[in-house]
Amino acid sequence: MSESTTHRPRRYVKELTAGEVIEDQVFLIGSKDLRTTSNGSLYIHCVLCDKTGQILGRIWQATEAMFEQMPEGGFLRFKGRAENYKGSLQFIVDAMRPVDVRSVELSEFMPQTKENIDEMFERVKEMLRRIKNRHLLLLVKQFINDKALMEGFRKSPAAIQMHHAYIGGLLEHTRNVLELTLSVIPRYPEVSLDLLLAGAFLHDIGKTAELRYETNFQYTSEGQLIGHLVQATLWIEEKAKAVEAETGEPFPQDIKHALQHLILSHHGQYEFGSPKLPATPEAIALHHLDNLDAKLDLYLTKIRDDPDHTSEWTEYVRNLGTKIFKKDVMGIRS
Amino acid sequence: MSESTTHRPRRYVKELTAGEVIEDQVFLIGSKDLRTTSNGSLYIHCVLCDKTGQILGRIWQATEAMFEQMPEGGFLRFKGRAENYKGSLQFIVDAMRPVDVRSVELSEFMPQTKENIDEMFERVKEMLRRIKNRHLLLLVKQFINDKALMEGFRKSPAAIQMHHAYIGGLLEHTRNVLELTLSVIPRYPEVSLDLLLAGAFLHDIGKTAELRYETNFQYTSEGQLIGHLVQATLWIEEKAKAVEAETGEPFPQDIKHALQHLILSHHGQYEFGSPKLPATPEAIALHHLDNLDAKLDLYLTKIRDDPDHTSEWTEYVRNLGTKIFKKDVMGIRS
Amino acid sequence: MSESTTHRPRRYVKELTAGEVIEDQVFLIGSKDLRTTSNGSLYIHCVLCDKTGQILGRIWQATEAMFEQMPEGGFLRFKGRAENYKGSLQFIVDAMRPVDVRSVELSEFMPQTKENIDEMFERVKEMLRRIKNRHLLLLVKQFINDKALMEGFRKSPAAIQMHHAYIGGLLEHTRNVLELTLSVIPRYPEVSLDLLLAGAFLHDIGKTAELRYETNFQYTSEGQLIGHLVQATLWIEEKAKAVEAETGEPFPQDIKHALQHLILSHHGQYEFGSPKLPATPEAIALHHLDNLDAKLDLYLTKIRDDPDHTSEWTEYVRNLGTKIFKKDVMGIRS
Amino acid sequence: MSESTTHRPRRYVKELTAGEVIEDQVFLIGSKDLRTTSNGSLYIHCVLCDKTGQILGRIWQATEAMFEQMPEGGFLRFKGRAENYKGSLQFIVDAMRPVDVRSVELSEFMPQTKENIDEMFERVKEMLRRIKNRHLLLLVKQFINDKALMEGFRKSPAAIQMHHAYIGGLLEHTRNVLELTLSVIPRYPEVSLDLLLAGAFLHDIGKTAELRYETNFQYTSEGQLIGHLVQATLWIEEKAKAVEAETGEPFPQDIKHALQHLILSHHGQYEFGSPKLPATPEAIALHHLDNLDAKLDLYLTKIRDDPDHTSEWTEYVRNLGTKIFKKDVMGIRS
Amino acid sequence: MSESTTHRPRRYVKELTAGEVIEDQVFLIGSKDLRTTSNGSLYIHCVLCDKTGQILGRIWQATEAMFEQMPEGGFLRFKGRAENYKGSLQFIVDAMRPVDVRSVELSEFMPQTKENIDEMFERVKEMLRRIKNRHLLLLVKQFINDKALMEGFRKSPAAIQMHHAYIGGLLEHTRNVLELTLSVIPRYPEVSLDLLLAGAFLHDIGKTAELRYETNFQYTSEGQLIGHLVQATLWIEEKAKAVEAETGEPFPQDIKHALQHLILSHHGQYEFGSPKLPATPEAIALHHLDNLDAKLDLYLTKIRDDPDHTSEWTEYVRNLGTKIFKKDVMGIRS
Amino acid sequence: MSESTTHRPRRYVKELTAGEVIEDQVFLIGSKDLRTTSNGSLYIHCVLCDKTGQILGRIWQATEAMFEQMPEGGFLRFKGRAENYKGSLQFIVDAMRPVDVRSVELSEFMPQTKENIDEMFERVKEMLRRIKNRHLLLLVKQFINDKALMEGFRKSPAAIQMHHAYIGGLLEHTRNVLELTLSVIPRYPEVSLDLLLAGAFLHDIGKTAELRYETNFQYTSEGQLIGHLVQATLWIEEKAKAVEAETGEPFPQDIKHALQHLILSHHGQYEFGSPKLPATPEAIALHHLDNLDAKLDLYLTKIRDDPDHTSEWTEYVRNLGTKIFKKDVMGIRS
Repeated sequence: MSESTTHRPRRYVKELTAGEVIEDQVFLIGSKDLRTTSNGSLYIHCVLCDKTGQILGRIWQATEAMFEQMPEGGFLRFKGRAENYKGSLQFIVDAMRPVDVRSVELSEFMPQTKENIDEMFERVKEMLRRIKNRHLLLLVKQFINDKALMEGFRKSPAAIQMHHAYIGGLLEHTRNVLELTLSVIPRYPEVSLDLLLAGAFLHDIGKTAELRYETNFQYTSEGQLIGHLVQATLWIEEKAKAVEAETGEPFPQDIKHALQHLILSHHGQYEFGSPKLPATPEAIALHHLDNLDAKLDLYLTKIRDDPDHTSEWTEYVRNLGTKIFKKDVMGIRS
Repeated sequence: MSESTTHRPRRYVKELTAGEVIEDQVFLIGSKDLRTTSNGSLYIHCVLCDKTGQILGRIWQATEAMFEQMPEGGFLRFKGRAENYKGSLQFIVDAMRPVDVRSVELSEFMPQTKENIDEMFERVKEMLRRIKNRHLLLLVKQFINDKALMEGFRKSPAAIQMHHAYIGGLLEHTRNVLELTLSVIPRYPEVSLDLLLAGAFLHDIGKTAELRYETNFQYTSEGQLIGHLVQATLWIEEKAKAVEAETGEPFPQDIKHALQHLILSHHGQYEFGSPKLPATPEAIALHHLDNLDAKLDLYLTKIRDDPDHTSEWTEYVRNLGTKIFKKDVMGIRS
Repeated sequence: MSESTTHRPRRYVKELTAGEVIEDQVFLIGSKDLRTTSNGSLYIHCVLCDKTGQILGRIWQATEAMFEQMPEGGFLRFKGRAENYKGSLQFIVDAMRPVDVRSVELSEFMPQTKENIDEMFERVKEMLRRIKNRHLLLLVKQFINDKALMEGFRKSPAAIQMHHAYIGGLLEHTRNVLELTLSVIPRYPEVSLDLLLAGAFLHDIGKTAELRYETNFQYTSEGQLIGHLVQATLWIEEKAKAVEAETGEPFPQDIKHALQHLILSHHGQYEFGSPKLPATPEAIALHHLDNLDAKLDLYLTKIRDDPDHTSEWTEYVRNLGTKIFKKDVMGIRS
Repeated sequence: MSESTTHRPRRYVKELTAGEVIEDQVFLIGSKDLRTTSNGSLYIHCVLCDKTGQILGRIWQATEAMFEQMPEGGFLRFKGRAENYKGSLQFIVDAMRPVDVRSVELSEFMPQTKENIDEMFERVKEMLRRIKNRHLLLLVKQFINDKALMEGFRKSPAAIQMHHAYIGGLLEHTRNVLELTLSVIPRYPEVSLDLLLAGAFLHDIGKTAELRYETNFQYTSEGQLIGHLVQATLWIEEKAKAVEAETGEPFPQDIKHALQHLILSHHGQYEFGSPKLPATPEAIALHHLDNLDAKLDLYLTKIRDDPDHTSEWTEYVRNLGTKIFKKDVMGIRS
Repeated sequence: MSESTTHRPRRYVKELTAGEVIEDQVFLIGSKDLRTTSNGSLYIHCVLCDKTGQILGRIWQATEAMFEQMPEGGFLRFKGRAENYKGSLQFIVDAMRPVDVRSVELSEFMPQTKENIDEMFERVKEMLRRIKNRHLLLLVKQFINDKALMEGFRKSPAAIQMHHAYIGGLLEHTRNVLELTLSVIPRYPEVSLDLLLAGAFLHDIGKTAELRYETNFQYTSEGQLIGHLVQATLWIEEKAKAVEAETGEPFPQDIKHALQHLILSHHGQYEFGSPKLPATPEAIALHHLDNLDAKLDLYLTKIRDDPDHTSEWTEYVRNLGTKIFKKDVMGIRS
Repeated sequence: MSESTTHRPRRYVKELTAGEVIEDQVFLIGSKDLRTTSNGSLYIHCVLCDKTGQILGRIWQATEAMFEQMPEGGFLRFKGRAENYKGSLQFIVDAMRPVDVRSVELSEFMPQTKENIDEMFERVKEMLRRIKNRHLLLLVKQFINDKALMEGFRKSPAAIQMHHAYIGGLLEHTRNVLELTLSVIPRYPEVSLDLLLAGAFLHDIGKTAELRYETNFQYTSEGQLIGHLVQATLWIEEKAKAVEAETGEPFPQDIKHALQHLILSHHGQYEFGSPKLPATPEAIALHHLDNLDAKLDLYLTKIRDDPDHTSEWTEYVRNLGTKIFKKDVMGIRS
């Protein structure tokens, strides 16, 4: 494992095959455990990760010092080989060395949207420019001009595991719901396109405060204490005041409340954490447009990622109350 | 009340004002009741209807014979005047006479879609022609070519009271769900447009057997015993056999089952009468597209028809678990 | 009905007896309806109210003009007599005249706490002074010093019909929960008394925005769109910023979130509109202390006010899922 | 392990004792896994099954080739010995060889009813002959004469794990419900015995399409997409048409719908997949008679098969919401 | 209305026709109300009952004295005539006189089983003699020998309105469940017939304390406070002690608890007031046998008594979650 | 491991550190299992317990005889050493010997209240002396004078795992609820303090029959068949009869039923096993006071005992539907 190797393209976890040897490559250490074999010697059982998945690692003839040296949730350079174990691969570590975190390409270690973040963000802004109501437009601009918030908005996943659970997932899902809104709502002239565009943009923005996604995805304490629905409601309050300061006029209270209601009610049922049920046409529309995109992503991802190729069905998905039928009966997913 | 009056334009129930006199006009008799006043004389309390609504009718100095002469659910010609009573109008009947049912313009007595039935039906057929899968296309044609069924499909309401509850409502709602499908589904290339077009077309077609809508809207016994979800499933079975007879080839069982599953699961929850929960991307998509149109129609209709103009909210709507906020905060429904 | 009568003590609705004559007294007009008798003459059916209850009023030989003159939700001076009708009293109006609203003693027309509002408010402030944490104490003071808010806090009912449904009810209920907190929480040294005192004070304060109680009790549109839990959360955000401005220090975010969580979760179940379930010892404690006082008031009020003295049980109370047993088996409520 | 051993009676899994040696016997391979020991050598971990149960198998000193040779869900001949491991038996494999599947006695590998299938089927037909209504009787005969369907009906289990989960279980359960019907329904002359006999016969017949039971029990995709309730409803539709072809008369639609309703509603609750709730006396009766037999079988089987003899209770049974009390307090199950 | 009329056969409420005159007949007064007509004169509105139903009564030109004289829940002799009013009959009272309650044939005023109470009770005792376990048999005898309890057991209705809601209904329902037990349980030799016979006998016996049925059917306060399930459990405790006193031996605790469990769990679900779910085969069997008889009685009674002959369906029955289909499709209920 | 070692203070499980050697100490054997290593030799895997927790034990080179000698749920003396294994400690046994159970200090092996049992019991009796109603006071004395029952009451845990799950826990929880009652109820003069004191004392007393707590905590069969709510109700019935025998007067039935209702309804919801919902002010008060203490104990215990110090949240607690936030934001739990 020479320090000065020229950069080889990464062998991602999903690409590894039994027998393959890795000379020198960085992994994120998901977890570690020091264990004793039945004949009394120590070994380390660990989980090595990159953005494509994770592999079980084993370090035979280990010492306590080696164990201490491994940073959980951090990075090391590894040498070793992939082997079959219980029908899955495992990685037998031959050596490991520290790595300078600044040299680590973080994007290799976290799942990420397949689309271009800048382009998606531009498209979001383009769609929001369709808002005609001056107050709403200024309110939306307050969000767009909040650099720190937009930084999070561009990177955050949309959820920890249900749908769009990857870097940029929140942006991708928001973009999709905006597109659906533009495709569909003009058919219903009594439903306010302005309100729905603003609502679609902001419906999950509270997740930037609810989810932490630096090295792995987790809920924040703040997120769990007040939730992303209320968080977004607080921000709308704050930004509406900023609009008032900007214009010197009162922000129309009805419009603000209708927008906050849209956010608070979009989960559609009390059990899913909405303190209010949808009470306006815009609110019920947002609920279904959000679900259409989120649920389709969930179903399609479960089908794509299912590891068991011998069954036509996925495992039971508790949130759906059913398994998902994977068979491509129309021959379109080949 | 002369027999040979030239035809005057109808004064609809919603147009009547206090004090107005009606010389001779046909009403549908919704219900009738023979009552006694506190001084012992008889009067008839009845409900008179046309497609715009209903008005309480009273016939003072009535006789049993007059009461017998009135056909419940049928038509008579009335003379009388509208009066205020308990803040609502009532119609004081001065005279009534039989009418030849063949001369009655039925369209004046039942609520009806505001759109053109022929045009909507053409549009439905046009959209269905996009189906590329030969088997599905032939299956859909079997339905389109079933004259009796299409007769019902063009006229049936989509529901008794929840949404699109008028003549042509099923067609209008089906057309809408097809339009939504075409607007939205091509964004998701892993979701079968063919299957969704067929499913959108057939999802509520069982209602033509479930609802009776000759003179007023009612559930049929058949509808209540097996339901429109199972009814449509039976028809798909039958039409698939007809396709087999037509082509001499077996109908692909997987496709048939996937389509039947779409219909059976589209209510989305067991409590709403779906014996299966959505287990395919197409099924979950149809559930949300159907709901988007049906719920928007429900919300907008409740807002439009709410009789109480002093409140910003409708009455509590049991199915929604909430009242609906009527105020047009964005100024778009004026 | 002479204009210059010296002021007689009011005969409250609950005091009226059959046959009693009222020469000149103001009533709140709850509702009105113009009706026709079976012989065709007009009469007005109305509901006359004061803080002790309501009585059916009838005005025979009425005219449309008389009807127009009556302000629904407003006040008039009435002359008439109480009579038995269907086992209840009704008030036969002989004459009615306008009244100058400024001369009306509003406290005679709305149910009101039996305790002294000033004393209760002093007691609340006294209890809040026990808060030791400087930030929380300043936050609470921001609320206490908000004159408009405190004006509402002192007058608002705690609910429209479930418990403490009278002027001053919110203050009385809040005072009670604070007293329970002080009696009980010091037994549990691991539970923060500071946090609970602040939480008990603020748990229902959003109701000042949710309920309108000028002439009768109603939900506001704002209240129904975002709810009193989220409203209080918004105010805590705003007041915490004011504390930061006052002190020049950041308000501890953990404490703010813990307090907001207390408010958001105090209904204890999603179905009751809490978007978060109690996740801290303080939150679960507030939930039970709030319920202890609110439910006891509900049970005791239902028992006191039950009009049917022939049964040992009240009517079925939907929210409780049971009737209430009224019998005073221990002989303490005589 | 000589090829030409005379046939020895099988040692069933439940009969094996620690230390026992098996010279040559066929097992169904339930699952297999290739694993590495801590010193790096390979072994195979597998599950060996016959109709009495399953035993963990281990093959030390294994090779990849040996692993490949083992057909999951298929059969091999094994030599080895039973040993204690973690308080349970495991089977240490010394050798294994292919077996000609045609020579395998399938009945030794799947749990099977303890009763005689022919006799039960005769009894079912005998009971169905009591049906007096000509149309219903012809309909039932259409089913009885459908050889392929009856082949499945005689062999299918009634469920995968809840009750009568063995070959012939559907027939046994159906026979039982028919017997209960005959014992009980004549006490209620207003309940149609004809309808209930037909309904009892057909209530679970859709399971022949829903369950696959060749080598092990599984749901079919078709079964999971449309379910056995709707499947039976489709078959009734088809057979009723066959009766019409046979008789040249229309099949009474009311009777057909009442029978289909019986099938669709017999689970009794929406959550259990019934799209309709029982709306006829026959439907509610079938629901309880079906449950009486199915639940008794479930309780008695759980008691009989419970492996833990130190407790008076079984494990918690999720579907029942309770543990089952096993103690034979009346001394009848010895 | 002469005092000494010879006894004429009663004209029951259900037999009355419009125009019919009643010279002198006793009615139970269900309720009474003193009202004023629109011209100011008094009249009495009352409900007159016998066991076949109730009819609205009116007494024109009434006085307060007349009103006072009428005993609510008691009896008077009436003269008057039946007339049509709002499509129903009402009874115009011409005169009324006191009646000696001892001369009233109570059986004419309360609905009553159509079977013979003595015969049913003998049959119950005969079936209980089949119990072989000595302790259980003695326990059952303690109940049978409790004269006061058996007096109530023979007369009590089984419920206030759901099923067997008439004098002798509890006995009839208990007899039925015992018959079902004897028909069905011997098919399941692992289920204790002894335990089920005792359980079937006692399952609803607590209703004798829960329901009051002297002049009309009501829940007792005791019944509503502890319920008939717990009441029966208390009695089993008491009677088991009496058996111990009788035999000088301890009553087997297991058997007592199993029997108490049977009673406590027989409603089958927590929501129906069972504090325990069925945990023994006997308990689940009793639950379904009880329901089979109770629900069939409910369905058949609703069908028989439905007043609307124009619809094939009853009204929606909340407890069932559905309407009931009344049509006699098999032609057996004519 | 010499027999005659002087008594050393126990090294509790929670105090053990890696590498520590234990010469001779008694452990409770929680479970045991005989296993084979991959090289075929036997070892014993067992769980060793004391009141502070449990540790995995391993005995290498074991024999079947050694395995037989270990009493599951019983005691042995052990020699060995603690070692790290998979990040946790395990205990490698070098030798083990029988121990005379009479010499075992049981209090070292079961978790126990930290308070003084005698003092708590005295306090309970002192509080109960406040009861003024003579009948209730005598009833309570019957319980206090029942030595066997009080023995159980002083020692029983309040629950198996939810709250106060230790020896003396029932007494501690009961004492707490009584204290809360005395602090709170005098504020509500219409609520009977007498009834609530008796109810608070008896609300969980049935748990002495429901839980077994000799060597470990388990539900009894009796407890699972009838439950502690009904058990306490039976005892009140029995003790009330004893009071009648003592006084020669009838015990007031209303008071007895109100007390029994208090016990039966105190879980507050059907799903939690209450056959009746709280129908009196006392019942609803007991429900909330009981929950206040029980839930606070649950939250605080979960926070104290949470093994994961890297997260601010506990694991998800199914009964609460949420995780618990552990962070001590107010700095009071240090």
